[in-house]
Amino acid sequence: MGKLLQTKALAKQMCDHLILEVKQMKAKGIDPTIAVVVVEGDPASQCYAKVKQRMALKLGIRYLLTSVHPRITEAELLEKIKWLNRCSSIHGIILELPLPKHLDTKIITAAIAPEKDIDGLTPANKLACFTGETGLYPATPLSCMAILNHFDYSLKAKKVVLVGYGATVGKPLVQLLLRAHATLTICHKYTVDLKEHIAHADILITAVGKKNLITPDMVHEHLVIVDAGINEGEEGVVGDVHPEVRNHVQAMTPVPGGVGKITTMTLFENLIKAVRIQKIKAKRENRRSESL
Amino acid sequence: MGKLLQTKALAKQMCDHLILEVKQMKAKGIDPTIAVVVVEGDPASQCYAKVKQRMALKLGIRYLLTSVHPRITEAELLEKIKWLNRCSSIHGIILELPLPKHLDTKIITAAIAPEKDIDGLTPANKLACFTGETGLYPATPLSCMAILNHFDYSLKAKKVVLVGYGATVGKPLVQLLLRAHATLTICHKYTVDLKEHIAHADILITAVGKKNLITPDMVHEHLVIVDAGINEGEEGVVGDVHPEVRNHVQAMTPVPGGVGKITTMTLFENLIKAVRIQKIKAKRENRRSESL
Repeated sequence: MGKLLQTKALAKQMCDHLILEVKQMKAKGIDPTIAVVVVEGDPASQCYAKVKQRMALKLGIRYLLTSVHPRITEAELLEKIKWLNRCSSIHGIILELPLPKHLDTKIITAAIAPEKDIDGLTPANKLACFTGETGLYPATPLSCMAILNHFDYSLKAKKVVLVGYGATVGKPLVQLLLRAHATLTICHKYTVDLKEHIAHADILITAVGKKNLITPDMVHEHLVIVDAGINEGEEGVVGDVHPEVRNHVQAMTPVPGGVGKITTMTLFENLIKAVRIQKIKAKRENRRSESL
Repeated sequence: MGKLLQTKALAKQMCDHLILEVKQMKAKGIDPTIAVVVVEGDPASQCYAKVKQRMALKLGIRYLLTSVHPRITEAELLEKIKWLNRCSSIHGIILELPLPKHLDTKIITAAIAPEKDIDGLTPANKLACFTGETGLYPATPLSCMAILNHFDYSLKAKKVVLVGYGATVGKPLVQLLLRAHATLTICHKYTVDLKEHIAHADILITAVGKKNLITPDMVHEHLVIVDAGINEGEEGVVGDVHPEVRNHVQAMTPVPGGVGKITTMTLFENLIKAVRIQKIKAKRENRRSESL
């Protein structure tokens, strides 16, 4: 039976480290603060916001909830985002998605200040992820990388198969995997012989959102799997990988208790990074205004 | 012996089409114009600029050469770029690279107006290429796609191996190949078993810049190769693929006479696209100023 890559210990480790970093920042007079914007009406959004609230409390991070009416206009919501951008005591902004249909997600996410965009959704951060420059990258791809690193699975020269090329997980993950020097095969719904590709892989990462996409007949005993799929059903949350697969591989992350457990921690790591980016930006602006 | 994918006919076809489009634009009062900025001192840059000048002449496109002194300051060069940006009768700006060391290539290319950046080097166009939005993409990746399309090699569900992940060719090409629904494997200098990957491929694209990287023992008789490598040596320009390979594959592009032949045409296609993008932008701005 393959090893189950439980991420509880990694989550604890990240949590402890974050608590320490927050304490050090507070000692220097910075009170790391996250602002979460929720458009009322979507129960999932409210649930996600609550998870972040609990974690913020645990980490000693200030949490500001901006709950808005489902019939808020685009202009009004943009005004709220801009206010959060301007407010120097707020370091990270999260806009819970999906938004109601009358609001243009692209326009509204793009309005978030890149240095506060801890979800990595703004054009500037997407570009940074693509080019490899400093920025805030999306949490799920970063979590996959953190898990592989934690369990000492080096990517350099390894054969990695990534299934799923969505904007939120697969696409940014391609950049991170290539920067770690993996030889990368990207599979998707048009791939005709997924099994053959997996047969040659050292590591398989799935980010599709399709229950039982990977079945025991498709894997091999040397394979390591990171399951970033999220499928909500009657039995709770499951991944893209059939649970039986565990018996036929070297190791795999469970769902729940795998990637998802790390994602919230990564988001708060992004908040700490955001504080640092904003500090550098403020210094640079101060210097510029002094030189004028 | 494999088929040699000579691109002369495709180049002719693209040329004829461009001549027609330029004529139609001129009939509507638009005189498509390209501005090429060359920092004196680099013979290659001057040579590239001349190739474009000859092609512009052939296509009926106005060509404006801005030749600047090698000791020009960054501020002065930026001022020149900004002037070209503002000038409404100029539709495409090309900055010949490499620049002398005292000039920051990143800062200067980023100053080009995205709607005139027919080389696809600005952050806005890089982002567009990454997200799949409308924009001006780099010419060499577009040329590889045009060649495969011209010779009726569909990419959907095909196994493609791309060797080389550089910023100019490989990286944008990944996005174009995935959008064409290829199952894509990206190989590079850390890939340990390139031959094995090629063994499973339908199409191989090389963009490394290493002479004889692909040798006859690495290929198979069903393989189609697009060689986007450029290696200048005593014997002239050669690609990444050993010429002997031709005898062991289904088809391959020659170097010279393959990708390179199409790149200049693609650049001018980008100019025509730029004219259209600028027209839409101007219309939008007019409408906005009228509504104020």
